[in-house]
Amino acid sequence: MASVGAVTPQQMHFAEPLPLQSGASLRDYTLVYETYGTLNADRSNAVLVCHALNASHHVAGHYAGQPKSDGWWDNLVGPGKALDTDHFFVIGINNPGSCFGSTGPMHTNPDTGRPYGADFPVVTVEDWVDAQARLIKRLGITQLAAVLGGSLGGMQALAWTLRYPERLRHCVAVATTPSLSAQNIAFNEVARRAIVTDPDFHGGHFYAHGVVPKRGLRVARMIGHITYLSDDSMEEKFGRERKSDSEELNYSTQDIEFQIESYLRYQGDKFSEYFDANTYLLITRALDYFDPARAHGGDLARAFAVAKGKKFQLVSFTTDWRFSPARSREIVKALVDNQIDVSYAEIDAPHGHDAFLLDDPRYHGVMRAYFERIAQEEV
Amino acid sequence: MASVGAVTPQQMHFAEPLPLQSGASLRDYTLVYETYGTLNADRSNAVLVCHALNASHHVAGHYAGQPKSDGWWDNLVGPGKALDTDHFFVIGINNPGSCFGSTGPMHTNPDTGRPYGADFPVVTVEDWVDAQARLIKRLGITQLAAVLGGSLGGMQALAWTLRYPERLRHCVAVATTPSLSAQNIAFNEVARRAIVTDPDFHGGHFYAHGVVPKRGLRVARMIGHITYLSDDSMEEKFGRERKSDSEELNYSTQDIEFQIESYLRYQGDKFSEYFDANTYLLITRALDYFDPARAHGGDLARAFAVAKGKKFQLVSFTTDWRFSPARSREIVKALVDNQIDVSYAEIDAPHGHDAFLLDDPRYHGVMRAYFERIAQEEV
Repeated sequence: MASVGAVTPQQMHFAEPLPLQSGASLRDYTLVYETYGTLNADRSNAVLVCHALNASHHVAGHYAGQPKSDGWWDNLVGPGKALDTDHFFVIGINNPGSCFGSTGPMHTNPDTGRPYGADFPVVTVEDWVDAQARLIKRLGITQLAAVLGGSLGGMQALAWTLRYPERLRHCVAVATTPSLSAQNIAFNEVARRAIVTDPDFHGGHFYAHGVVPKRGLRVARMIGHITYLSDDSMEEKFGRERKSDSEELNYSTQDIEFQIESYLRYQGDKFSEYFDANTYLLITRALDYFDPARAHGGDLARAFAVAKGKKFQLVSFTTDWRFSPARSREIVKALVDNQIDVSYAEIDAPHGHDAFLLDDPRYHGVMRAYFERIAQEEV
Repeated sequence: MASVGAVTPQQMHFAEPLPLQSGASLRDYTLVYETYGTLNADRSNAVLVCHALNASHHVAGHYAGQPKSDGWWDNLVGPGKALDTDHFFVIGINNPGSCFGSTGPMHTNPDTGRPYGADFPVVTVEDWVDAQARLIKRLGITQLAAVLGGSLGGMQALAWTLRYPERLRHCVAVATTPSLSAQNIAFNEVARRAIVTDPDFHGGHFYAHGVVPKRGLRVARMIGHITYLSDDSMEEKFGRERKSDSEELNYSTQDIEFQIESYLRYQGDKFSEYFDANTYLLITRALDYFDPARAHGGDLARAFAVAKGKKFQLVSFTTDWRFSPARSREIVKALVDNQIDVSYAEIDAPHGHDAFLLDDPRYHGVMRAYFERIAQEEV
């Protein structure tokens, strides 16, 4: 199957302030987005793909002259792929608060003329969906064929059905959850503390100091990585394999002894080179806050009552201990309680939470079948 | 049931160097220990209790005039308790490298006249067992009735049967593992990186700078705490409960929003006030290195061949995802393969790894029954 080929990010500027859940607002902001495929004449074939923590608008294709610049869901989105760009017009949007192009903490705060830093307003999943809805409207799309996302992206897909039910027909939510558990919040909090207590964080205004809180970012990423992988896949991939070929142990508390240490340090180092610390705080907080049942006394079924008539595909992965299948089943139950049309696939995959990004034939088979169904409904 | 009452730690000095697995040695060291109950005339009723990461020789009883100074296994060890000090003579020993009294990184390195700091030699579970064996010998005990430990303490109990099989009759190993998994090592490594990259660590020689790498210790402890609790018990205890009574969210990335955040920060703060950073590195490394199968081509059954004739009680807890029941079953299998007498209890408990420290009636029932059996065998 072919890739969508070379792609170019586009920008859309919004002069009208975006009111946020917190009561604050974001003014004068820009969203970066990409599109793949062609919008059909009646503008009915658009699919919005929402990104998770460490991703962006760059869902598929590559940037000309940049090898290894494949989009983060390139294995799923393209001509002839499960989400087939020969049929669908696919849109990836970078959320505000991100560090990948849309207005975020590194950009200039119009109120001060300096980078927002820690003063960037706290954004929620609902705020992101509002921002996305504006962009979709400007593209002249009245109703999306589907909104698709995995993990945090899945939360956005769900939130679309609650905030703009009339503006989409299908929701495809993969490896997601109706709210973070205490353990999920706990991991986020440790990562945030590692960043915030890094002396180079400077209260979130480190840009002015010409430094980056890399120590904190490294630790945050290492923690994240552990939770993305299953215990089994980590064991299979690394086990107790040593870094050195020598039979002898190093007997050192700080030198790398095991491959897993080397892998995690590498992931942490790489991440700290490009990810923004304030963005990390904002995105983990958006994860913490997502809880559509909250406004309905904790009753998720009541929350989804507004989504009646929408159609859902949910997917979870057996070894995902971050957002386990049980959490997806909570969503399925809430939908079924509303007699909403929902398909649910629990994929037996060894890779943990990361499985949603991987090319598992059963998983992609489910996705392909569902998007084919959407395509057929249009005819 | 009564407590053992007020207790006083004792010290034993060793002038003869302790050769270590690394090839280095520890010279001129002191071990701190406590005893409860009375050694009988034929010195056959002694039980050694080995401690885990955040514990010490202070297993039971309290220190006179210090409320809240109960030993860490006071619910298990005492007159009439599961490990009954009316019958047994119980010994708790603080391991070298610890920060609770025995020679450790904060003590003076006789080679330099300054605190060891990061130069304290890397110690292993086997080194600790060697140190304990010397102390037991000096107490005039030729053969222990049992060695008991939970978690890292359980590893020491197992190592006793491999290094000094003739010097104990029973091994009681709770919530332990024959080796750390890749995920276990990963969590240790993140904690170590948090400590080592704290600018106040000063390469492990922070004592000379009058500072303590508290940021790193806090993060390390927070990570540890998450792994000690089960997902379920954390959900039950904290869930998404808010810190404030207000209905309104704070919309802050740094302020505490959820109870779980408050709890973890408190645990981290408390820990950073008393625990030594170098000790944390040493003890997590000892955990990483423990792997008795390694010297036998990865064959755990071959490793335990030397323990023939010993008797074992193993206990695991269903919700322990740090050292899961599957890991205890590996040990049971290796013992059974050697036709070694082993009892195994898998306790259905909600508390995760921490369950080994708690007073669960089924768990303590198993322990009581086993120690009664040991007592009867003596008669």
